[in-house]
Amino acid sequence: MKNTVTPLDRVRVVLNRPSHPGNIGAAARAMKTMGLSRLYLVDPRRFPDAEANTRASGALDVLEQATVCASLDEALVGTVLAAALTSRRRDLSLPPLTPREAAPQLLAETALGEVALVFGAETSGLSNDELDRCQMMVMIPANPDYASLNLAAAVQVLSYELRTASLIGAVPEEAPGNWAGLEEIEGVFGHFEQVMIASGFLDPASPKRLMHRLRRLFARTRLEREEVNILRGILTSLDPHKKAPCRKNS
Amino acid sequence: MKNTVTPLDRVRVVLNRPSHPGNIGAAARAMKTMGLSRLYLVDPRRFPDAEANTRASGALDVLEQATVCASLDEALVGTVLAAALTSRRRDLSLPPLTPREAAPQLLAETALGEVALVFGAETSGLSNDELDRCQMMVMIPANPDYASLNLAAAVQVLSYELRTASLIGAVPEEAPGNWAGLEEIEGVFGHFEQVMIASGFLDPASPKRLMHRLRRLFARTRLEREEVNILRGILTSLDPHKKAPCRKNS
Repeated sequence: MKNTVTPLDRVRVVLNRPSHPGNIGAAARAMKTMGLSRLYLVDPRRFPDAEANTRASGALDVLEQATVCASLDEALVGTVLAAALTSRRRDLSLPPLTPREAAPQLLAETALGEVALVFGAETSGLSNDELDRCQMMVMIPANPDYASLNLAAAVQVLSYELRTASLIGAVPEEAPGNWAGLEEIEGVFGHFEQVMIASGFLDPASPKRLMHRLRRLFARTRLEREEVNILRGILTSLDPHKKAPCRKNS
Repeated sequence: MKNTVTPLDRVRVVLNRPSHPGNIGAAARAMKTMGLSRLYLVDPRRFPDAEANTRASGALDVLEQATVCASLDEALVGTVLAAALTSRRRDLSLPPLTPREAAPQLLAETALGEVALVFGAETSGLSNDELDRCQMMVMIPANPDYASLNLAAAVQVLSYELRTASLIGAVPEEAPGNWAGLEEIEGVFGHFEQVMIASGFLDPASPKRLMHRLRRLFARTRLEREEVNILRGILTSLDPHKKAPCRKNS
């Protein structure tokens, strides 16, 4: 067994609501061949499953150690960066990176904490809400006439790029900023939402468009921990519900 | 439909004796997502097959247009370069390239003719004889503790590297030499063998080691068409069987 934690050990592969257990097994195999081991499964339709085991071949250990989560947010707890795989050019505010561009950046982030690669379900992909949880978009430069990679094949390509980047040392030198973790950033969004509803600026019946724009904005700028504290301080200070019942020290 | 032939259209993916039809279908899908279309199947155990069709998904056309061959040599007819995928560090006289190193070279060769990527059977890989048919070795830099990529996953990685190389234009500038085709080179080896047996230098009961060394030698140097003609002229001139029964003009 390995004694030291390598950058690849800090990469989570998150399969969001996978439909076919065979793809889960094949993804585990793809990961292990490239030295990745941390599989997270969000609400898989069937797991564990004999077909998953068969397709995993010699990577049964990756399946056995997989973490099953109820939601994508749960799978991202403790990560500092989440990258979403997307096969469609949607109305993305973030320009998608190629796997080759993304891999060294993801590895560099492992110096700060765990990173996640998030793969959507086989046919439906990731919803806009799920994309909003991610700060990086990755698109495999596929044939525009047929861009539909199998789920495990996409995992293979990304894992391969990560391994290759780690082998050739293509990790950019970057002063490790004191970036906020995803939970802290989610805390900011939750705080924004609460305060904006309280102020009447956000209609709680249809919060999506506004929250989406906010998330995009902060995904582009990347928040430091101190900035999170500042934002939350501002939000607390502006919260109408906090003002109404006057506290002792106000 | 496309009107122009791109470098990717001149790449054959050759699956040598594939055991599982599902892998054939998945390989076809992997190819098409990366813009490759020319699938060659050498003595497949089951083909056509419903499982292959299912796993091909939207790449049924690649399966339908696949060429089924009886032997690897047949699949390589008309190519100018064959690259073998290998997952083991054997006693290779040719140092293996990574897919990233190989892809631009393979694309550059398409200026001269068709090139082949040769993948061995799922469990047994390629035999030494089959490796001898190839002038380039490619090894995916996999986890040394578990290097067993699924066949279609390996096709995906190589196809992805070829597509990426074609998109970023990483094709080295190389004056197109007048290289010999593989059939011409095979002709040289056959000629060598025949003449060496006739001379008593080669034991026809165990020709392998010597022929292997010859093949390696010429794989490293790469033969031009004129050199093939020269070699064959020399061999003809030295052939003991030709000398024995005196011809009119000798």
